[in-house]
Amino acid sequence: MEPSSRVSEQIRFLLEIDRLKGVLRRSLVLDGSRRENDAEHSWHLAVMAAVLAEYGPSGADLGRVMRMLLVHDVVEIDAGDTYCYDAAACETQAEREVLAADRIFALLPADQAKEIRGLWEEFEARRTPEARFAAALDRVQPVLLNFHTQGRAWREHGVTRGQVIERNKHIEAGAPVLWEYVRGLIEEAVERGYLVP
Amino acid sequence: MEPSSRVSEQIRFLLEIDRLKGVLRRSLVLDGSRRENDAEHSWHLAVMAAVLAEYGPSGADLGRVMRMLLVHDVVEIDAGDTYCYDAAACETQAEREVLAADRIFALLPADQAKEIRGLWEEFEARRTPEARFAAALDRVQPVLLNFHTQGRAWREHGVTRGQVIERNKHIEAGAPVLWEYVRGLIEEAVERGYLVP
Repeated sequence: MEPSSRVSEQIRFLLEIDRLKGVLRRSLVLDGSRRENDAEHSWHLAVMAAVLAEYGPSGADLGRVMRMLLVHDVVEIDAGDTYCYDAAACETQAEREVLAADRIFALLPADQAKEIRGLWEEFEARRTPEARFAAALDRVQPVLLNFHTQGRAWREHGVTRGQVIERNKHIEAGAPVLWEYVRGLIEEAVERGYLVP
Repeated sequence: MEPSSRVSEQIRFLLEIDRLKGVLRRSLVLDGSRRENDAEHSWHLAVMAAVLAEYGPSGADLGRVMRMLLVHDVVEIDAGDTYCYDAAACETQAEREVLAADRIFALLPADQAKEIRGLWEEFEARRTPEARFAAALDRVQPVLLNFHTQGRAWREHGVTRGQVIERNKHIEAGAPVLWEYVRGLIEEAVERGYLVP
């Protein structure tokens, strides 16, 4: 492949993923003015990885964690954000996301398509220390946003304490200290009426 | 310091920087619907670093480049986004940004405040290979967005070809292949009337 064709393919992928800025999540940004989008969320997670690295599995490769977090939601450009407390949407989520991965990562030169798709699959499988830490951060961040916006997204959907614990308990496998912190927030959220007991 | 106090300081910083999602830039997102914010921009740059790493200086530490890009605009929470073709704003930019850095990075535990402020200062100084590559990407991305939104932000401000070359020519020091690519876009932008010749 000519260098100019390779860089063009890479740029085409980088332009395509700009659409992640338009994929809205359920969480609000902290000033409560609007819903957060996937690009902002991915940025926030990558900074969290750098700042909270000491709570991840020892020996985890921080650069790999960050790269995983930066691309972990790219499939939502086609598949959309699936609300984690919506059982019907969750049923079709995996299939929709694989189709999205087939299209979007293939925009890259073959070597990079394989590498970056591999990062996404690694994240989804949650088997490596890096993936467990990345997945933990992906759950800590919405809890922080929900708690500090007076539980608005939780209250709108009638989310219960049990659902939040069930959904987020795998934080413990990737970052036990952060799970302890989040457990504290969940109990406080129940006391304040942000979560159904 | 107790672990619980340390993690609380880290989380406080991570909540504070959520405000970067509300700092608007001049560039539009690619669908042209609105201006891009600094959090999205920082995410886009970090992905670009991963995908375009091969065009950076040989031996540059990619993890360091990504961490630098993720925090390089945090000072704009207080200092605001300074439009690069506004000479008056540029005069006071450095002073405003140092005050912002003094406040925001100090939210972190002392060791991390020093480390992350160091990344920001390294980025600004553009002396290390990592900083030169990061600074190059920070200039490539708005050119891509401007070009692919029919030059709207350029046209609104009557920006000239000469200004864009002057502002962006340091891309060459961090990523010569990307400078060649951008030079092509600039000439094409003039032909299409997006830039004043």
